[in-house]
Amino acid sequence: MANLDSIVSLCKRRGFIFPGSDVYGGFAGTWDFGPLGVMLKKNIMDTWWNYWVEKRDDIYGVDADIIMNPRTWLASGHTETFADPLIECKACHGRFRADKLAKGLNESVTDAEFVRLHVKCPTCGQEAWGPIRMFNMMFKTHVGPVTDDSSAAYLRPETAQGIFVNYKNIVDAFYPDIPFGIAQQGKAFRNEISPRDFILRDRECTQMEIEYFVDPEAWETEFEQLLKETDDFLENEMGLSLEKINHLEVDAKDRAHYSKRTVDFMFDYPNGEEELMGLAYRTDFDLKNIEHESGKSMEYRDKNTGKTFVPHVIEPSIGVERLVLAVLADAYKEEPIDGKDETRTVLKLPENLAPYKFCVSPLLKNKPELVEKAQEVYRMLKDKYTFVTWDDSGNIGKRYRKQDEIGTPKCIVIDFDTLEDGTVTVRDRDTATQIRIKPEEL
Amino acid sequence: MANLDSIVSLCKRRGFIFPGSDVYGGFAGTWDFGPLGVMLKKNIMDTWWNYWVEKRDDIYGVDADIIMNPRTWLASGHTETFADPLIECKACHGRFRADKLAKGLNESVTDAEFVRLHVKCPTCGQEAWGPIRMFNMMFKTHVGPVTDDSSAAYLRPETAQGIFVNYKNIVDAFYPDIPFGIAQQGKAFRNEISPRDFILRDRECTQMEIEYFVDPEAWETEFEQLLKETDDFLENEMGLSLEKINHLEVDAKDRAHYSKRTVDFMFDYPNGEEELMGLAYRTDFDLKNIEHESGKSMEYRDKNTGKTFVPHVIEPSIGVERLVLAVLADAYKEEPIDGKDETRTVLKLPENLAPYKFCVSPLLKNKPELVEKAQEVYRMLKDKYTFVTWDDSGNIGKRYRKQDEIGTPKCIVIDFDTLEDGTVTVRDRDTATQIRIKPEEL
Repeated sequence: MANLDSIVSLCKRRGFIFPGSDVYGGFAGTWDFGPLGVMLKKNIMDTWWNYWVEKRDDIYGVDADIIMNPRTWLASGHTETFADPLIECKACHGRFRADKLAKGLNESVTDAEFVRLHVKCPTCGQEAWGPIRMFNMMFKTHVGPVTDDSSAAYLRPETAQGIFVNYKNIVDAFYPDIPFGIAQQGKAFRNEISPRDFILRDRECTQMEIEYFVDPEAWETEFEQLLKETDDFLENEMGLSLEKINHLEVDAKDRAHYSKRTVDFMFDYPNGEEELMGLAYRTDFDLKNIEHESGKSMEYRDKNTGKTFVPHVIEPSIGVERLVLAVLADAYKEEPIDGKDETRTVLKLPENLAPYKFCVSPLLKNKPELVEKAQEVYRMLKDKYTFVTWDDSGNIGKRYRKQDEIGTPKCIVIDFDTLEDGTVTVRDRDTATQIRIKPEEL
Repeated sequence: MANLDSIVSLCKRRGFIFPGSDVYGGFAGTWDFGPLGVMLKKNIMDTWWNYWVEKRDDIYGVDADIIMNPRTWLASGHTETFADPLIECKACHGRFRADKLAKGLNESVTDAEFVRLHVKCPTCGQEAWGPIRMFNMMFKTHVGPVTDDSSAAYLRPETAQGIFVNYKNIVDAFYPDIPFGIAQQGKAFRNEISPRDFILRDRECTQMEIEYFVDPEAWETEFEQLLKETDDFLENEMGLSLEKINHLEVDAKDRAHYSKRTVDFMFDYPNGEEELMGLAYRTDFDLKNIEHESGKSMEYRDKNTGKTFVPHVIEPSIGVERLVLAVLADAYKEEPIDGKDETRTVLKLPENLAPYKFCVSPLLKNKPELVEKAQEVYRMLKDKYTFVTWDDSGNIGKRYRKQDEIGTPKCIVIDFDTLEDGTVTVRDRDTATQIRIKPEEL
């Protein structure tokens, strides 16, 4: 099993993911994607968009702004309930999440429960706690030139509400048949008290969410269908091993009060099992809240049956960073090299997600005839496949190690035989075996 | 020439762009992309990324977080100078941009200059002004559970600094030969005092920026090269008419103090000429500021010449919303329909940017044999091209009007002749001419 530190280290070394604002010593809970990370992230996001939106007829895309009318968060309940229990050490003024500090307590921890456990401050070692208060995790800002309550606004804590506020516009412009979905990809923000675990619990993440609108009587069938499609997506498009994914049926007491069914997709991450994504039946909770707050009807009229109702919603929701880490962790291997007393690190990424599909190299950098021929092959492949890289650094063994680490499926080497018979060496990332073929046969 | 109101209206009616948080009456300066707008925006962004990053060997991508270490904005100068002159009416407490209120004044307007002009408050009509003060346009927030100066942070006002803070990581991980570039696409925020002109001056926009790092002695040649490539991109990838674009050489007095050359690409928008994008020579201003703030060396060592220096930077910078509006405005036409006393509205979008490439329709919706055949053609095309839409609403004339308005290049109609000889009608968006061919020939 991959170890998280090794993945973090590879990500920085090879230009996948850097600490945010690294040149200034970082900034807690932020991470920047480097050149290879952007390629991997973009492949994952484009594959998701193609699978759920472009290839289907029933799911519409939106791209809403991050700063929304603050009534959005009154209606959704975030202003009141999107909060973690915060406790302050009166000795050193350190602030902590009470439930995380006192393991075993849940988010509705009381002062009495906390005091009973005699927790010491992890910073100064004292036991001098102030009262627990609920800390809202939405990032607050002010819009316009006045800084007071009237201008307060928030960075969205989820992309879902950017979908719900556009539900009516989409029904009016497109008259979709039910069931239909609306999908969005974009940033969401959560002012975590203690961000941790690399990109798993960061302050800024990219979400991919679908709100799927259904006839209230059909929710169970549609839920099953989306569950099946989600598994298909994770296995066949993301290449994840299904044995590392556990469908957790969330108990009634742990579900949102309005939800009748929620399945958490738990993934076997290097640091333990964690939520990869969720599939939640949200009933008409959100649309009804919007009706209440906006005074506008969210009713939908079924053209075929004439039935009129507020649709119910099933929500597949996934964080891109969690998916990126699952893909990296599943692909990361350390293997002995045949015949040598060494190991290699290799990212066995699915071909559709690998940043580069091919790497082209001249066997020797200082032989102009090899470099020229290799450049010719490189140009030919790059024109055809775009995602092709060139490597003439170090010796051939080092190049293979590097391409293994960034997950390039095939390395193509131009040597003296190429000049004779036109064939090149094609070395396979996963098996490390080599064959000779003509580059046109690739 | 297209009129801005007609474009705004088409954008809402057809699901390109909606006012942000529309269900709550909107939210000033925010706009949401609907299903067709997302397709257009994604086509534009993917084309840019492909042109500047994927197809080239010398430009690396990054995707940095929006909330950055606040030292970033101290170093870049935004904390001190990213501000507009704000004036308050003492009678009604309305706040306005002093330079916009008193036309002809520039951003460094003084109280004395303002008073001399006897401007009346546009809200209450009085002339009772407080002093002008500089209003910083960065959105401020607080990170972590403490709300004081020590936790203040900002939403990035430009994507450029997300590139500069990663410059050293990329040099260390990839050893790029100079010249090389780093590109980023992502949201940037500007707390405009008075947002206006649709998506042209919004509070939240998507930027596409490249910082191109060059040997200080080579900047003039590289600038010319990027200017040429930018024109090529705008004309051949975005389909914009170059006669609507004016290269404005920015005067020394209007340029940033450190810049030796800046070209603003002015576009002939419906409401007048406005900046579409900029190409600026920024010298070593940013990297030197980072050296100063971080204490780390930003020097680059040229492997070929052995020369060591802090690279100079040329920056092509474009706002996606400004580009979307230029593409829409350039494509928008109202034309008389041949032989009828009517006009049609048509978006003559370049084929690579149009949301859908084909629309498939049965001539009559109530003839099952036509619908079935049309579905077969639809499936075949959708499997092959993805961006294909189905339309069986209203009559055929109305469908053409609708597809014209959303810019679909070809409408394919299945009629009774199709059942006889297998040919379909293909109607061209721009010429409205029709031909009959077999669908496999498309």
